[in-house]
Amino acid sequence: MTMVMKPRPLPGPLGLAFLIPTAAWFILRPFLDPTPALPTLYTSVGFSIVSFLASLYLIPALGQSFIKAGLKGKDMSKVYKDDIPESLGLVCAATYILLLILFIPFPFSQFLSRSDSEGLASVEFPHFQLSVYLSSVLSLLIAAMLGFLDDIFDIRWRHKVPIPIIASIPLLMVYYAEQGNTNVVVPIPFRAIFGTIINLGPLYYLYMALLSTFATNSINIIAGVNGAEVSQALIIALSVIANDCLYLPWSTSFKFQLPLYLLGGQADVDVGGVWSAGMAHGSKQLVERHLFSMYFMLPLVGVCAGFMYHNWYPARVFPGDTLCYVTGMAFAVVGIQAHFSKTLLLFFIPQIFNFILSAPQLFGILPCPRHRLPRFDPSANVLHPSTMTFAEKPPSKLGELILRAFSYVGFVQLTIRPEDGVIVAASNLTILNAFLVRLGAMSEKRLTQTLIGSQILCSVFAFVVRYGLASLVYDGDRR
Amino acid sequence: MTMVMKPRPLPGPLGLAFLIPTAAWFILRPFLDPTPALPTLYTSVGFSIVSFLASLYLIPALGQSFIKAGLKGKDMSKVYKDDIPESLGLVCAATYILLLILFIPFPFSQFLSRSDSEGLASVEFPHFQLSVYLSSVLSLLIAAMLGFLDDIFDIRWRHKVPIPIIASIPLLMVYYAEQGNTNVVVPIPFRAIFGTIINLGPLYYLYMALLSTFATNSINIIAGVNGAEVSQALIIALSVIANDCLYLPWSTSFKFQLPLYLLGGQADVDVGGVWSAGMAHGSKQLVERHLFSMYFMLPLVGVCAGFMYHNWYPARVFPGDTLCYVTGMAFAVVGIQAHFSKTLLLFFIPQIFNFILSAPQLFGILPCPRHRLPRFDPSANVLHPSTMTFAEKPPSKLGELILRAFSYVGFVQLTIRPEDGVIVAASNLTILNAFLVRLGAMSEKRLTQTLIGSQILCSVFAFVVRYGLASLVYDGDRR
Repeated sequence: MTMVMKPRPLPGPLGLAFLIPTAAWFILRPFLDPTPALPTLYTSVGFSIVSFLASLYLIPALGQSFIKAGLKGKDMSKVYKDDIPESLGLVCAATYILLLILFIPFPFSQFLSRSDSEGLASVEFPHFQLSVYLSSVLSLLIAAMLGFLDDIFDIRWRHKVPIPIIASIPLLMVYYAEQGNTNVVVPIPFRAIFGTIINLGPLYYLYMALLSTFATNSINIIAGVNGAEVSQALIIALSVIANDCLYLPWSTSFKFQLPLYLLGGQADVDVGGVWSAGMAHGSKQLVERHLFSMYFMLPLVGVCAGFMYHNWYPARVFPGDTLCYVTGMAFAVVGIQAHFSKTLLLFFIPQIFNFILSAPQLFGILPCPRHRLPRFDPSANVLHPSTMTFAEKPPSKLGELILRAFSYVGFVQLTIRPEDGVIVAASNLTILNAFLVRLGAMSEKRLTQTLIGSQILCSVFAFVVRYGLASLVYDGDRR
Repeated sequence: MTMVMKPRPLPGPLGLAFLIPTAAWFILRPFLDPTPALPTLYTSVGFSIVSFLASLYLIPALGQSFIKAGLKGKDMSKVYKDDIPESLGLVCAATYILLLILFIPFPFSQFLSRSDSEGLASVEFPHFQLSVYLSSVLSLLIAAMLGFLDDIFDIRWRHKVPIPIIASIPLLMVYYAEQGNTNVVVPIPFRAIFGTIINLGPLYYLYMALLSTFATNSINIIAGVNGAEVSQALIIALSVIANDCLYLPWSTSFKFQLPLYLLGGQADVDVGGVWSAGMAHGSKQLVERHLFSMYFMLPLVGVCAGFMYHNWYPARVFPGDTLCYVTGMAFAVVGIQAHFSKTLLLFFIPQIFNFILSAPQLFGILPCPRHRLPRFDPSANVLHPSTMTFAEKPPSKLGELILRAFSYVGFVQLTIRPEDGVIVAASNLTILNAFLVRLGAMSEKRLTQTLIGSQILCSVFAFVVRYGLASLVYDGDRR
């Protein structure tokens, strides 16, 4: 059955009449007296709205050109078989990167330096940080380019895993040239062995490269339902922003206390006030780092939100690898440059869970079919877990042990031959299949919502760990 | 007729046994005692050899993947109709940009600073120039990306002309953030009106954007014979390097006098010696600028040479727009960042000639067919000028005037109806057609050689103008 998919309706004049002036106000606000504290943050919010509008309008406008250029795919979990434009993540990436470049004069030139009046001019980036910013944009652009090449040339899975390492080269080169810090603070239990601070040297560069690879591929691998990739990116970006907000000096009218003792923390934190407020505890460097992170995350939220509107069930466009590469790289960039990579990893709990769950298939302990996405049942319009079979060869001892362990906690569904108890099939080891095993067959939309819900819950949990439990293994709030 | 094109033979073990150690020596030489003057220049030469080898080997290796991805074309001026892989300029661009990024630590970090010994450490880039370098690489990468998108989506001519302006945005943004100089020195005859120095302000940014557009499109437009685009790029790059060499402080053993009086200059110039030598006249800034230019031009020569080997008649690969975008942008980058854009434009004399010649067709004064490349005559295996016809409508008064003027100097061939002397057809107004009109029909290979020869002659002429005649309108050798 083929039906002609109508593009999703775009906001009418009323919506635009609200959004465009709002964006303009945020962008222009720093130029009006009295200059606000953190003026470039206003600009960044304005750019975020612009990026949302740009991706919202550009994606449907360019869809047909993508189909014409052969960038198209079928939706496997639908009854209709329309061509859906693929790789539209490229539009997001291009919008995002172009806005990041157009943003350069705001934090890095003199024309916002009137903010002296409040003594907050020092919040402005020091000039040399421009090269850090540029190397980040360069890494994002390489990620976008390689993601798109991956879509065009259809690179094999095992070749594409290290691609983000190439994209992180500018980051590493400039980090090296700028004599970046390669020290890490040792958790309290290990200090007897390693001391308080350990210099990882070249290992730190390896860590940064691996972080990019992880952030990129771990999002890319959770695919197969409409909106899966972009919703992960969106929630992680929002979590990073929420975390950044804790470190910024808000104006005093905002002031309130975070009751951290509820989470097991040792002290309350005043959020708000001027310099001395927030988790930054008066550290100008921490404020600058988290501002840097905000500048990259706010427009990312904009493009992702615009994209998600068109990628939502039933999807009108597909992201392609480009979107995952760019968003993953953006997370790696802020984690590395703003020095909160451990906190960042806490926002990747569902991805880490999926990776651990998938590892036996990825590393060849269990058979791995080409596609592991949930199986679509057109008659009921629901998704079932997809399976790997052991028809030819039973699983190895280790494989069987892993399967039985995962089955015990309800992440995998086993088909056991009643005669002899041998495992003949098992659901594929992905988070999406695990949801279907745990919660039963469901519609694609419901599965996406489940994924989103779990990502949000995990982010809440991440904050509890970061600000509640971290004090058990780290003193102070250095990073 | 279809024949299976054999890939061009690659250098055997003997060639590699020479090139690889040579590259390694240049890259490692700065680390050996005694540290040479300009150590990073050695590295750059080494990188240039690496880039040559990379493009030499990667291009034939990847050709089939390009064909498989639909990036292929037929050679219009050949008797055979094989699929030729198209857009291989992408491989050049990727190699070039990756090497530029890997080069970052050499000029910008501390590990080559041992060169203190000769008092030449100050030749090293100041740290803040890193952002200028990064913005240049960013512009090149955007140019590569947009060139490739142009190849994929086949953007219309009128839409693609402004594309280089987008690629120049990072350049302009960082120039602005870094409070770049927007003053220009006024030629002597105009000083009575404008003074010695004039601040162009925003016009300077417009000039920079237009320079990128010109450098890119003027190379792109001279296409249609094998090797046309890449040979232009190669000769311009070599001319820029020759010009840069005049400004570098060579070791004293190199010292010789340039007899500039022969060219009408006012004084001889000592090329060689230490600081005070060369056209730099002791200006550290000039030396730095021309080093910067060398860092971008040397690897460009490498990739272009490697590409040209495979693109030479009969071509095994086509460049696509990507190559023109990246090379054109590279010229704009060095012209802008190293402040010798006027000298740069002198190396574009054939392109400027072609642009002036083409203008009546480009701007609609005369009809412009979709393709203006020379017409192939398979029976004699030669190229003839292609034509525009006035069958439907005779040329306008202005059009006829232009055609008769160009015909008078022998750049265009007119077909005139004997009865009434009306022009019924004319050869298309391009430099390639002009060669064919002037020199008669010739083989494609010969036409490429003619183009190359004229480009070299024009570069020689450019040096005469720059160092001979420029003293008539400018005092000193400021830029």
